[in-house]
Amino acid sequence: MSLGEFDLIARHFARPVRRALLGVGDDCALLAPSPGMELAVSSDLLVEGRHFLSTVAPQALGHKALAVNLSDLAACGATPLAFTLMLALPRPDDAFLRGFAQGLFALADVHGIELVGGDTTAGPLTVGITVLGEVPPSAALRRSGAQAGDDLWVSHPAGGGVGDARLALEVFRGAAALPGETFAALRRAMEWPQPRVALGIALRGVAHSAIDLSDGLCGDLGHLLTQSRLGAQLEWADLPRSDAMASLPMTMQQQCVLGGGDDYELLFSAPVAARPAVQRAAAQAEVAVCRIGELRSEAGLRVRWPDGSVSPWAARGFDHFASTDR
Amino acid sequence: MSLGEFDLIARHFARPVRRALLGVGDDCALLAPSPGMELAVSSDLLVEGRHFLSTVAPQALGHKALAVNLSDLAACGATPLAFTLMLALPRPDDAFLRGFAQGLFALADVHGIELVGGDTTAGPLTVGITVLGEVPPSAALRRSGAQAGDDLWVSHPAGGGVGDARLALEVFRGAAALPGETFAALRRAMEWPQPRVALGIALRGVAHSAIDLSDGLCGDLGHLLTQSRLGAQLEWADLPRSDAMASLPMTMQQQCVLGGGDDYELLFSAPVAARPAVQRAAAQAEVAVCRIGELRSEAGLRVRWPDGSVSPWAARGFDHFASTDR
Repeated sequence: MSLGEFDLIARHFARPVRRALLGVGDDCALLAPSPGMELAVSSDLLVEGRHFLSTVAPQALGHKALAVNLSDLAACGATPLAFTLMLALPRPDDAFLRGFAQGLFALADVHGIELVGGDTTAGPLTVGITVLGEVPPSAALRRSGAQAGDDLWVSHPAGGGVGDARLALEVFRGAAALPGETFAALRRAMEWPQPRVALGIALRGVAHSAIDLSDGLCGDLGHLLTQSRLGAQLEWADLPRSDAMASLPMTMQQQCVLGGGDDYELLFSAPVAARPAVQRAAAQAEVAVCRIGELRSEAGLRVRWPDGSVSPWAARGFDHFASTDR
Repeated sequence: MSLGEFDLIARHFARPVRRALLGVGDDCALLAPSPGMELAVSSDLLVEGRHFLSTVAPQALGHKALAVNLSDLAACGATPLAFTLMLALPRPDDAFLRGFAQGLFALADVHGIELVGGDTTAGPLTVGITVLGEVPPSAALRRSGAQAGDDLWVSHPAGGGVGDARLALEVFRGAAALPGETFAALRRAMEWPQPRVALGIALRGVAHSAIDLSDGLCGDLGHLLTQSRLGAQLEWADLPRSDAMASLPMTMQQQCVLGGGDDYELLFSAPVAARPAVQRAAAQAEVAVCRIGELRSEAGLRVRWPDGSVSPWAARGFDHFASTDR
């Protein structure tokens, strides 16, 4: 197999563009943004052994690489438009690329966006994606918009909870053991996250602030609190947990639910008066949401446990340098 | 040294944005594109050992990573707006990041663009950049716009020529030897390429087609010919060559000038009647340009040598999978 760089691109990634003025194959792609809209941009880089395991199926990797970027657009309430792909792989591997492209384009098609450009090269397996989206003027959800007294909400998969992806990672690491069928569902949460794009759009004008869960619940909440200059109290009993999670020892639950990582759910705040509007937005987007706590003017993060006690908790997330909680 | 991911980003890459609505630190950056303009997007990925040597100075790497992306905007005639940075590095290295950021931002400042977002992670040293620019409707230069009879032009550094970066690489590889002072100039061409942004903008409405030289003169000309469905004849005597290049054996000259790679000059075509307009554009952009051949309706690439003979030449470029000519 000795496909060259250009052949590879053409074979797997060049699809005719429908909305862009010019797609893959020139020095730049050309887009015509909708008049009057703001442009939302986000870039994420996925590295083998850090963001995905070497055992991941190519389809799942293609899906996840785009999903984590779409999740950033979702957290801003932006409508996805287009994306570019930067791909380094050790050798031109036709089977890998076919699977990767399948996973990538299947998700792109769900959200009606197209690949407009990028770069393919030899190197350690690395996937970089930049997504572009648009949002009406001043309608973007920001991390800094939360207000004291806001409810804190999180989305979650039907039948699943926060921290399932982290639990799957702990099983891979040998730190937890679960029956095969249960593990399959958690592994799916880790490898096939569903970006909450429709929910983000439905929350425009409803939520005060939003962030997507990539570093874990408390880590990402920490970013939101820092940028909004607030504190928060979480209700442990209200945190959505899968049955598998709820069956585990408390320390493992805390590590996965509060520490977590790789959920790609939306964490957002909204005023108490907006509870019906939040529920309508969730119903419209067909995504489950849970009210899990509230934002307070006093700094710091606290958790209230089922016995009524309240204790401080570190607002730290998963660190891709340390590959551990920080 | 145990800086976390977020500290690193804040320390070296978070600068207040002037033009963007929202910069580094949220899920997405927000931009307000100029009304009525088309958006140009390009992404390039640089991998250690493929696109740069491990001996490169961090400043030079920061410069080059942005330069190769700006060069793509230049080839479209787009005005740069903003960029995102995806950076994988083996460990949080403060000295490396300081130098890298210096080189990156110095070039960004020259072109009045700002870093609006991105991602930093642990991994093999890899730099991915996505640049955004804008261009008036239908004014973008494309690879497909060339016409039979067009002159073929190339830009080059003052006192330098096409292929100097490739010659520097051959010296690093031990395939060529040059005096230290001469090598320093070539190494500068390889490590500090100057994207021809002003020239690209000045060529709007003048050039029929353009591409930037990244894969080498004949390789990139091949892309232009394929997309424009044309052939071309190059005049060897008119190809801009540095004194160092002209002193070398003919086979090495051919390998570097025709094969080349990493020039980041503009190769463009324009009608014969536009010769004065091309010269005005070059003068306005303060960049040297040479007329090096012409486009023909017959397929294929030919070179006319100083003795008057004409021979076919393969329209192949540097392949970052094979790390060799293809």
